[in-house]
Amino acid sequence: MKIRIVGRPGHGQSHSVKSKSWRAISRFKLVPLALKDVTFTGGFWAARIENNRRVTLPVEYRLCKQTGRIDAWKLNWKPGQPNPPHEYWDSDVAKWIEAAAYSLATHPDSKVESRVDGVVDLMAKAQAKDGYLNTHFLAVAPMKRWTDLRGSHELYSAGHLMEAAVAYYAATGKRKMLDVLCRYADHIDSVFGREKGKKRGYCGHEEVELALVKLYRATGERRYLKLAKYFIDERGRRPNHYFDIEAKARGEDPLKWNSGRYERFQADQPVRAQAKLDGHAVRALYLCCGMADVAAETGDRILLAACKRFWRNVTRQRMYITGGVGSTHSGERFTFDYDLPNESAYAETCANIALVFFAQRMLQIEADARYADVMERALYNGVLSGISLDGKRFFYVNPLAQHPELFHYSRWVTERQKWFDCACCPPNIARLLAGFGQYVCSQGLGEIAVHIYAQSSARFEVDGQTVQLEQKTEYPWEETVQIKLTLRAPADFVLALRIPGWCRNPRVTINGKTLHLPAITCKGYARIRRSWKTGDLVELTLPMPVERVEANPAVRMNCGRVAIQRGPLVFCLEEIDNDAHLNDIRLSRNSRLTAKYEPRLLGGAVVITGQAFRRNPEGWNDRLYRADQSKTRPVAIKAIPYFLWNNRKPGEMLVWIRE
Amino acid sequence: MKIRIVGRPGHGQSHSVKSKSWRAISRFKLVPLALKDVTFTGGFWAARIENNRRVTLPVEYRLCKQTGRIDAWKLNWKPGQPNPPHEYWDSDVAKWIEAAAYSLATHPDSKVESRVDGVVDLMAKAQAKDGYLNTHFLAVAPMKRWTDLRGSHELYSAGHLMEAAVAYYAATGKRKMLDVLCRYADHIDSVFGREKGKKRGYCGHEEVELALVKLYRATGERRYLKLAKYFIDERGRRPNHYFDIEAKARGEDPLKWNSGRYERFQADQPVRAQAKLDGHAVRALYLCCGMADVAAETGDRILLAACKRFWRNVTRQRMYITGGVGSTHSGERFTFDYDLPNESAYAETCANIALVFFAQRMLQIEADARYADVMERALYNGVLSGISLDGKRFFYVNPLAQHPELFHYSRWVTERQKWFDCACCPPNIARLLAGFGQYVCSQGLGEIAVHIYAQSSARFEVDGQTVQLEQKTEYPWEETVQIKLTLRAPADFVLALRIPGWCRNPRVTINGKTLHLPAITCKGYARIRRSWKTGDLVELTLPMPVERVEANPAVRMNCGRVAIQRGPLVFCLEEIDNDAHLNDIRLSRNSRLTAKYEPRLLGGAVVITGQAFRRNPEGWNDRLYRADQSKTRPVAIKAIPYFLWNNRKPGEMLVWIRE
Repeated sequence: MKIRIVGRPGHGQSHSVKSKSWRAISRFKLVPLALKDVTFTGGFWAARIENNRRVTLPVEYRLCKQTGRIDAWKLNWKPGQPNPPHEYWDSDVAKWIEAAAYSLATHPDSKVESRVDGVVDLMAKAQAKDGYLNTHFLAVAPMKRWTDLRGSHELYSAGHLMEAAVAYYAATGKRKMLDVLCRYADHIDSVFGREKGKKRGYCGHEEVELALVKLYRATGERRYLKLAKYFIDERGRRPNHYFDIEAKARGEDPLKWNSGRYERFQADQPVRAQAKLDGHAVRALYLCCGMADVAAETGDRILLAACKRFWRNVTRQRMYITGGVGSTHSGERFTFDYDLPNESAYAETCANIALVFFAQRMLQIEADARYADVMERALYNGVLSGISLDGKRFFYVNPLAQHPELFHYSRWVTERQKWFDCACCPPNIARLLAGFGQYVCSQGLGEIAVHIYAQSSARFEVDGQTVQLEQKTEYPWEETVQIKLTLRAPADFVLALRIPGWCRNPRVTINGKTLHLPAITCKGYARIRRSWKTGDLVELTLPMPVERVEANPAVRMNCGRVAIQRGPLVFCLEEIDNDAHLNDIRLSRNSRLTAKYEPRLLGGAVVITGQAFRRNPEGWNDRLYRADQSKTRPVAIKAIPYFLWNNRKPGEMLVWIRE
Repeated sequence: MKIRIVGRPGHGQSHSVKSKSWRAISRFKLVPLALKDVTFTGGFWAARIENNRRVTLPVEYRLCKQTGRIDAWKLNWKPGQPNPPHEYWDSDVAKWIEAAAYSLATHPDSKVESRVDGVVDLMAKAQAKDGYLNTHFLAVAPMKRWTDLRGSHELYSAGHLMEAAVAYYAATGKRKMLDVLCRYADHIDSVFGREKGKKRGYCGHEEVELALVKLYRATGERRYLKLAKYFIDERGRRPNHYFDIEAKARGEDPLKWNSGRYERFQADQPVRAQAKLDGHAVRALYLCCGMADVAAETGDRILLAACKRFWRNVTRQRMYITGGVGSTHSGERFTFDYDLPNESAYAETCANIALVFFAQRMLQIEADARYADVMERALYNGVLSGISLDGKRFFYVNPLAQHPELFHYSRWVTERQKWFDCACCPPNIARLLAGFGQYVCSQGLGEIAVHIYAQSSARFEVDGQTVQLEQKTEYPWEETVQIKLTLRAPADFVLALRIPGWCRNPRVTINGKTLHLPAITCKGYARIRRSWKTGDLVELTLPMPVERVEANPAVRMNCGRVAIQRGPLVFCLEEIDNDAHLNDIRLSRNSRLTAKYEPRLLGGAVVITGQAFRRNPEGWNDRLYRADQSKTRPVAIKAIPYFLWNNRKPGEMLVWIRE
């Protein structure tokens, strides 16, 4: 039996099966379904994706317009005028176009399309004759093209434009933006590389690597894949570190700036030699995405081994329980193993999204549910926390504890904001939500895998016929998922259902008959191989008891504390439900915690209630310290899903509760 | 009966009794003994003061010399040369001179004196004709004199020079430096004030206020007192905020920089209107010292009320248990009430010393032991931690928890250093130790008060005869203090012995007879009024059980944690004694903690040992999170005095231990 991929599979939504043999893409065990083949029919994600389409995307377009990011493409900024286009403005517009394109794939909308077309027309006009394309360097600093790869975000912006072009082409079939970006990629290819006369540079902010692989898949042009591989492998080479070469060329003393800081840019040594994933978290994880893509496309086992090494390091030593990554504000970076401060956590929304991207790629390569587990953890917690319930405000940083007065003393605001000068996060979460369909199911050889449980309808082709896979579920609020298959004729294939890592006693039935899971579970997937008939009904029950989670004793911040988790959701206490001084609350180890769905709270959410203890507040007489003598009293507590915090009013928040 | 002050009492060591009536200084209830009248005869402080004299002072002179701070006074720096004198270099040299002067008061040393004289000669030559004196502005930026009071440290440096001049005059009787600084003060008086034609400015870094009061006391020149009062009262006046006026004059947009930041400089509103002590901690507390001095000298009750308000705010809401103050690196400042992070604590050594200075002044004004309690807390903990046991290395910041790897990610080094570019702390702790005699005893009307228990011999005059007060004690290691009085003839006066606030069951005997303390204790002092005869022996017993201290529930970082305290000392765990992952250690509430003196540890110290618990480290399999299931196992712990940490090898440290 043979399964053929139909439509445009998910990697870039455009890589044509005809242009490659199965062998060429066989380094991926799985390929995501195309966006247009997955629709959300209700429940948790449909509401969020719909709100993203109706509210967030228009709001973000308006902000791009208001802040000058759209009109920057007219290149009519003149010296002396205010508000010059910034080096990374292009990337904000690009991510908005990518989000709009994903949305158009399932929801055609001529108004959105004409907005995109308007920007694309400006882009085409703005493009230099040699193919160069960056509003800042074209309008503001034309003499500085490619002189500061470390700091300029030039290739980074190019990469986001390429991703957008590929997505827009996949959604609409319109080639104009794709052609513009191919010309730009050709220009970049003519400037960078190991060949004589080319610069041996690479970007300080990775992104172009993964984008070039998308462009390669969309066009079949192997030079783009080769260029991506070059950017990855050139990184961190010495002697003659490129960041030093260009610094000297700018007349700077490289020792003053670079010395000891290469690792901030993942450029301390070539990635194949690096033991840990270090430096700026978004950059590091975008790099990992590019590495995984190149490894999969070229069968490069050493590069894949580096991906797996970095994956282990991040997810086993450097990840918050929310899937947040990059623990410090200073440098927006990874620090050292087990250094996961809660209140001062950075965990930038973009970094948490980048972890999802990396997980998604490794999942397709390895078909191992541990990647999907992290993907799900980040999606439901550290990513969704980045956007307000109304879809209009955004967190740049996602701390795991908060005191409202920190607002005045922290460099980063502690409430969601409408926009940022460096506005990377808002359009990033918009493109993630618009493209959410690609995370749900993948297809492999003789197999369809379900990673994310969400009420939806997915289409895929088996033996020449289209199979419909419908999920009915209130996940993550409820424990059951019903999967119904519709086929014209019976077909043999494997339905691989992810058994979440957090779940201890999963049950699966087919047409009412219980399966013995241990016999068929492999790498976290229950692999049901049978001749499927239309109307077959699979029911999963994923019991979601309220659990207390502890962190490794090396995480010094969380010793003596537990996080409340139910299913994939991490919970938190907010001041509005529990009064101030949340850190004084102590859970007793055997007190009962109860989950209950509250339909009117925050758009409907499960809350956890229970009994805990606090110190008796009396007798302090305004003293700061006294001999330990406090008695405690019982108090009721109420925890809400972490991603919903800061949607009512400012106040304290706490994930890790004392036990 | 009348007590006359003899010698040069402690305020600046030079204010002559003859130049003032008692009335004029009666706003101080107490006056510290002069440095030369207090000698340390052994025990805890003698060793440290001796080491300061023999090691720290020469080391710091050498560093001032090596770094160009001494030769800067030659004014021969030329544009284009490296290492231009910095705006606050003068203050480093000044503090070293002040320290040297205090040392000379009890230990005359011709070599030290000639070093000081050498610098003073350079100073006198460097002084401009109009009296102006600052190496940076004379040699590097002559056109920028008095153009940036907010940022330049010009008056701050002037203040430190004045303090040094007063101290050197008091110790040696040499007038040259005092005369130079009087000329400078006269110049400053001609430039600043409310009179027409004068600038209505004040320094961004307070210090000159308290220094002018010292200069007034040394010279009797009331203009200096008036100028100090002007600087205090002008601060923060609006409209036409001076920092804006001078910013505009420099061609800057004041809104860009000042907006919302006045409070960093205690200049958001006049001090009399301020409710809380805010902004940069060293600046704020030097200001408080100047306010207390001016209030005491002028009888200004409103100013004194502001001092008391700020004192309460700092010590009841914003002070670490170590006496450290200023909790955040960003702005080296106070943040908000109860915001006392441990690992990221700033608690700059200079700020903790400034709290001692403020406490010392309030103690003389109010004769209330709560000021001495804070003074003692800071001295034994957050101040002494600022210097290594060998006297050669210094902490700028004094955190209450530490992880060695933070070294690579924190702006501030986490090990003591030999010196700093901004070298305020090393000479500050040197002058504190050299001048330590002034904290021990004070004299009041008919009264001698003992604040600090330290093996020493103090002289004071009563009814025309010199009385010798000898303390014999191993405090703070041991609980007993013997005080022996030597007089030519019996004399009536009050011996006021401080009963430390941490002590619950103090006992005092005179010649073996126990006193009933409640009857004679007032404001924290046991006031023993009698006719004293030579050989009278007072014995204090200040029981020092090992105590667990808890913090107010509003201190979110310390909920569920206790600090170990014994007597005035706060203890900490170090990795070298307790292995890594100190935060995983949990004290049980009823486990016994035992104090024991270890003569060979860190120069001899009391350590606390006991039993605690840790999680069993097994079964984690490199996982980061798991369902809460850990069992604990008993472990032995050992705590050392906080001030001694980081004297063996780098590693974790922890003050607040989980309970």
